[in-house]
Amino acid sequence: MKEILTRLDQGVLEVQFNRPEKQNAINEAMYSYLAEVLVDARTNPDVAVVLLSGKGASFTAGNDLADFMNNPPLDDDSAVFRFLQTMADFPKPVVAAVKGYAIGIGTTLLLHCDIVVCGESAQFQMPFVNLGLVPEFASSYLLPLRVGHTKAAEWLMTGKPFDANEALASGLINDVLGDEQYFSVARQKACTLAKLPRESIMITKRILKQPYMAKTLQTIEEEGDLFRKRLQSKECQQALAQFLANG
Amino acid sequence: MKEILTRLDQGVLEVQFNRPEKQNAINEAMYSYLAEVLVDARTNPDVAVVLLSGKGASFTAGNDLADFMNNPPLDDDSAVFRFLQTMADFPKPVVAAVKGYAIGIGTTLLLHCDIVVCGESAQFQMPFVNLGLVPEFASSYLLPLRVGHTKAAEWLMTGKPFDANEALASGLINDVLGDEQYFSVARQKACTLAKLPRESIMITKRILKQPYMAKTLQTIEEEGDLFRKRLQSKECQQALAQFLANG
Amino acid sequence: MKEILTRLDQGVLEVQFNRPEKQNAINEAMYSYLAEVLVDARTNPDVAVVLLSGKGASFTAGNDLADFMNNPPLDDDSAVFRFLQTMADFPKPVVAAVKGYAIGIGTTLLLHCDIVVCGESAQFQMPFVNLGLVPEFASSYLLPLRVGHTKAAEWLMTGKPFDANEALASGLINDVLGDEQYFSVARQKACTLAKLPRESIMITKRILKQPYMAKTLQTIEEEGDLFRKRLQSKECQQALAQFLANG
Repeated sequence: MKEILTRLDQGVLEVQFNRPEKQNAINEAMYSYLAEVLVDARTNPDVAVVLLSGKGASFTAGNDLADFMNNPPLDDDSAVFRFLQTMADFPKPVVAAVKGYAIGIGTTLLLHCDIVVCGESAQFQMPFVNLGLVPEFASSYLLPLRVGHTKAAEWLMTGKPFDANEALASGLINDVLGDEQYFSVARQKACTLAKLPRESIMITKRILKQPYMAKTLQTIEEEGDLFRKRLQSKECQQALAQFLANG
Repeated sequence: MKEILTRLDQGVLEVQFNRPEKQNAINEAMYSYLAEVLVDARTNPDVAVVLLSGKGASFTAGNDLADFMNNPPLDDDSAVFRFLQTMADFPKPVVAAVKGYAIGIGTTLLLHCDIVVCGESAQFQMPFVNLGLVPEFASSYLLPLRVGHTKAAEWLMTGKPFDANEALASGLINDVLGDEQYFSVARQKACTLAKLPRESIMITKRILKQPYMAKTLQTIEEEGDLFRKRLQSKECQQALAQFLANG
Repeated sequence: MKEILTRLDQGVLEVQFNRPEKQNAINEAMYSYLAEVLVDARTNPDVAVVLLSGKGASFTAGNDLADFMNNPPLDDDSAVFRFLQTMADFPKPVVAAVKGYAIGIGTTLLLHCDIVVCGESAQFQMPFVNLGLVPEFASSYLLPLRVGHTKAAEWLMTGKPFDANEALASGLINDVLGDEQYFSVARQKACTLAKLPRESIMITKRILKQPYMAKTLQTIEEEGDLFRKRLQSKECQQALAQFLANG
């Protein structure tokens, strides 16, 4: 698929958002393809590690809102929910390499990665409330666990943007590097993981995630119900229409 | 009430401790009034956000111990417990602006706020053990979640004071600013929240807190039982008498 | 016991690894003695606090792997499991003073201490996966709670070493000091704890740990089962043999 590039090399499956003219905004077709790629990678013995990144200036600006309003994810079978579920319980290590915009799901999907390496230009934001919406991808559950209630509350309630250094100090990501280096460092970490005993790594990931897994999957569903109800509210319709008119 | 000032302006309910000659120490009448204010604010459609602060040099030096020993909170209906319960499950955002002393409940109530902005003079301490008492306001449950076991254990077991920078690095608060700016920044954040879609904000606060709410309310009760038992111990009586004699 | 020194002074029980020629690597006899010391200290009214440290350049390099392969801990009654269980639910405060190597269990046992003071030379590592093994001592459960998933995942999946400053920023430890000062500061903190109201301190430790205790003990067992299975795998046997050949 043109908008999602994949390449498998020595156990590392590189998955790259490739829609740089739209800051890698994700549309329904891209969610659907990402879900397929992950379902295959789960069981493909040649894949030891997944490395996520974005082509061009940004990781991803999040949902493609124009596409999103034409194809609202109104049921649990939508492409976006298939992606959320597959990503949330993916059994192999996932490394993310992030620079530029990581907005909305561009931030929340990092909560489901195992190692996150950022370039200094990385900019995070979760503007769900600002659009009359509510948090998704289990961020209401996982973000306070990661960064504490006050950070999570400010980021999710006010949609305040934050940079790579704040993300690092809060424990959301592992490293901040120059924009010229971040990708090669992320790739190096993925290669290191690919060479280590696979069974030990998969057991380790499973037991690290196990205390949170059932509640994570349940929260994705509960947030989805709330999200869909909010989508139909006047507050949200107006906020989205205004965003698209301005954007 | 003279010791608690309130002012409602554009959706922001300012609540201010106003007993600066006692470093805003909280007595039974103040707890009772605070509980009333919060009960009204829960359902008052004109209140979008609560902004807590202290008049004068300090946020609050905590319980007024002289008043406390004259009116020990010996049952679950006491004013202090009505305040704890109302604050713990308050459904709208609460912003706290803190400088100077934030002692005892002055620190633990911050665990129930959503955004905490501090002046550089802020000084925190939870000297429950030092008085022969035990932690309260669900701090034994919420503090390790927020700052990790070792920080929580040192702060609660030794009563070690800590400053605004340590509080920030630990994830207890959101910002440290100059003492001249902290209040206007906190107020600005409250005003921002008041203008955002209210239903989205209240859902967001609810789902952020939901995984911890039942256990938080239960811990407030269990700690209360332990606290009342300790109050009657010789160790505690001696420590309190000595504190009052010195103070 | 020569390899474990103990000294009781004014309520502080000092327990010191004393095998500096092996970087204080812990063998079966040492685990067995440590478990005995802790079982006695639980109920000994003269012990208010335990202070753990290492003689010489390092805290401890972890399991003595040569001894470990000769005496693999193949059942729940092994010395190492008696130590893990006794340490995990030890009811009195434990202060650790750490410099130099804190490898494997040298890092994971810090998750069961209440205050951890480090010298600037402290070096941490949890190379379980690198040896074809899996995390132990409930680290798969307690480490993400303490430092967040991404830090925990990188440290446990890649076995990446980290220094005292990274440990401090992540919330794993309380303080970093010069190597000349760290021990006296740790001892001072232990002495402070020993002078505070003991009943208040023990209640505080109990209620801080209570939400995690059952799951911690269960995880120690579950990780133990996985650990023993991995020990018998070809991957692990080869990694251990190679380590010993190189070491």
